[in-house]
Amino acid sequence: MRRLDSATPQFQDQLKALLAFETSQDPQVDTRVAEILHHVKTRGDDAVVEYTNRFDGTSAGTMADLELTQDELKAAFERLPDARRDALTAAAARVRSYHEHQKMASWSYRDEDGTLLGQQVTALDRVGIYVPGGKAAYPSSVLMNALPAHVAGVPEIIMVVPTPRGERNDLVLAAAYVAGVSRAFTIGGAQAVGALAYGTATIPQVDKITGPGNAYVAAAKRAVFGVVGIDMVAGPSEILVICDGGTDPDWVAMDLFSQAEHDEIAQAILLCPDAAFIERVEASIARLLPTMPRQEIIAASLAGRGALIKVANLAEACEIANYIAPEHLELSVADPDAWLPSLRHAGAIFMGRFTSESLGDYCAGPNHVLPTARTARFASPLGVYDFQKRTSLINVSEAGAQKLGRIASELAHGEGLTAHARAAELRLK
Amino acid sequence: MRRLDSATPQFQDQLKALLAFETSQDPQVDTRVAEILHHVKTRGDDAVVEYTNRFDGTSAGTMADLELTQDELKAAFERLPDARRDALTAAAARVRSYHEHQKMASWSYRDEDGTLLGQQVTALDRVGIYVPGGKAAYPSSVLMNALPAHVAGVPEIIMVVPTPRGERNDLVLAAAYVAGVSRAFTIGGAQAVGALAYGTATIPQVDKITGPGNAYVAAAKRAVFGVVGIDMVAGPSEILVICDGGTDPDWVAMDLFSQAEHDEIAQAILLCPDAAFIERVEASIARLLPTMPRQEIIAASLAGRGALIKVANLAEACEIANYIAPEHLELSVADPDAWLPSLRHAGAIFMGRFTSESLGDYCAGPNHVLPTARTARFASPLGVYDFQKRTSLINVSEAGAQKLGRIASELAHGEGLTAHARAAELRLK
Repeated sequence: MRRLDSATPQFQDQLKALLAFETSQDPQVDTRVAEILHHVKTRGDDAVVEYTNRFDGTSAGTMADLELTQDELKAAFERLPDARRDALTAAAARVRSYHEHQKMASWSYRDEDGTLLGQQVTALDRVGIYVPGGKAAYPSSVLMNALPAHVAGVPEIIMVVPTPRGERNDLVLAAAYVAGVSRAFTIGGAQAVGALAYGTATIPQVDKITGPGNAYVAAAKRAVFGVVGIDMVAGPSEILVICDGGTDPDWVAMDLFSQAEHDEIAQAILLCPDAAFIERVEASIARLLPTMPRQEIIAASLAGRGALIKVANLAEACEIANYIAPEHLELSVADPDAWLPSLRHAGAIFMGRFTSESLGDYCAGPNHVLPTARTARFASPLGVYDFQKRTSLINVSEAGAQKLGRIASELAHGEGLTAHARAAELRLK
Repeated sequence: MRRLDSATPQFQDQLKALLAFETSQDPQVDTRVAEILHHVKTRGDDAVVEYTNRFDGTSAGTMADLELTQDELKAAFERLPDARRDALTAAAARVRSYHEHQKMASWSYRDEDGTLLGQQVTALDRVGIYVPGGKAAYPSSVLMNALPAHVAGVPEIIMVVPTPRGERNDLVLAAAYVAGVSRAFTIGGAQAVGALAYGTATIPQVDKITGPGNAYVAAAKRAVFGVVGIDMVAGPSEILVICDGGTDPDWVAMDLFSQAEHDEIAQAILLCPDAAFIERVEASIARLLPTMPRQEIIAASLAGRGALIKVANLAEACEIANYIAPEHLELSVADPDAWLPSLRHAGAIFMGRFTSESLGDYCAGPNHVLPTARTARFASPLGVYDFQKRTSLINVSEAGAQKLGRIASELAHGEGLTAHARAAELRLK
């Protein structure tokens, strides 16, 4: 695993190279996706069924064969072993409870002329949740996407989840049941995104699509952005651990593993002012790695994109963290509150030695859909606010129209927009 | 101007056709923009200067020639006629005051185990404001983009505004001064978007780019989305007037004109249950149109995309409005409060007969950057919240780690993510 030192002259360049990630789109994927979207838009259900049979190795006759009933979702939930069902229910309750705090409320006020100004907050009518299938089927993602929509008050939540060769994941179906999904279809890929964006005879058109997916899903979401809303185009997972040297090195090593195991191109970085502690973490990594079922993925990720970085002190660690703007930031130090004000950019901050990132992935409460690839500089975790929108409210009183009309008229003439000016002037006495 | 009646069987199809707007991107524009962005990314200032000289007919030697100083912005403000300067100042004060209400605050709470959960809200570090130049130079757009950023607490606001043939618009420069723009460059097009997204030796890299522009600007914003945040890709302006027949028909006609005058493809629609009133509005349109300086644009817009629609009643008008999800919605009725709860999708609602849409464009307070092309189904006005972002906070107590660790472990094993499970289990006693 790469060892860097912030005191060396080449450090800035090394850090930049470490973070560089080619996010550029593949033109071939874009072309293929455009074709799929066109067919879904023009041929509807038929196209979705054909693509699904072709790409997922299924043999559906009609779209109806690709819909999961509420009974099937419920049965999947009831089939789960008790411990798993309880864990899913407990996680959902905590996630729901946290997200209740995010609900936006309408507001308004009147100015001195009696003019009302405000903002009305409403939920989206209908949203689509994309859930990956196959080996990367994560029921926790169902909770993290559907629950905020549910808390927001979205009346209809449509889930799509591909089932390659017809293999259904009970835990995914159970999560859909727990999270209050309205309808679910076993479709995926660009064809599922297209079906949600344009609607078909069977699949209702949604207003927004959220959830992770492969390169085709990401390209399709980009392409339909504008027709519907989308959440974000997620990159590989990242963890940045800031440690003062006082945490059990095994804990730190395992926390780094827990992002690295997602993907060979996931990124795990440690910032620490204590060189001896870095050695101990390195030893823990060497000892624990062979015990991990996904050791090959972890090893590839750590070797390719990981780093153990010696820093001057925790203040410098926070500065570097702000530059990295990581998806997950562990502040594994004695007094995390003291350092919090120094941190400006991160998807989520896991404070204190007991807060492993994995607790946040499943059940602490906050969302695990977080901005990646330095986008925490401007983007936020998925939340209830992503499923609500605002409408400005203006009710100008007759007195207000006299005052505002003169200002608007003056500026509209300045912009050469005479009808704007006249519309204001007509309301003047 | 098109006359429709919601009682006719063909109405739904007519409405759908009326709203259809081809938002698809032009592949040739995309290719040209990709080339410009590549040159700006790799050659920096030199490329920006070359493109600016070529496209804007200027003869700058270096990037320094293309920067406006704070003194130049201030001088432009001071050169304005008194009435215009006062109007600009008054509008800015009202817009600022409204947007203060939008500021998000951080929050947190502790659960029964002492675990802290919350969300930290911070401002973006640096944003770029794109302001169109030439004939469509709107100083009000400078206020509407820069002021929310300023209220959010963004320390650096970088404005770009092309000055074709070197022509500067004093009102735009003055607005930049009033709105607290940090630095301003006389560049535009895809090259300006690229410079802001990637940074050059002279132009600092920003975290988000907002503001309207032509097809090249829109394509460039789409292309750099992910490297930086963007606001939205705006379509042509729209107004939907719901009138009960009690408003002066001249007022309604002029309000329709005030969107139609923006653009031949702008859209102005009236919904009214009173056929006689619709006739009177039509007569007002015929009488007033010849008096408008931009009558050709207005006539083209009304003929091509406008409509006067007879509806059964105001309840139906609200239903149709929700389908249209207009950018601007005038509720020009006796009791607008009574109908507000029926309206779910609109960028802004202008309530009551005195609230002309143009008051909102300039000085009522709310933002005039609003979702177009039915995107109000899922999108919101530009606001302070677009220049703030959230970071989840989690500080799990030792007791909390015992409870949450068991839940996370159970679910992580269910997803086959052993390192996630082990990271939680290591914290168990």
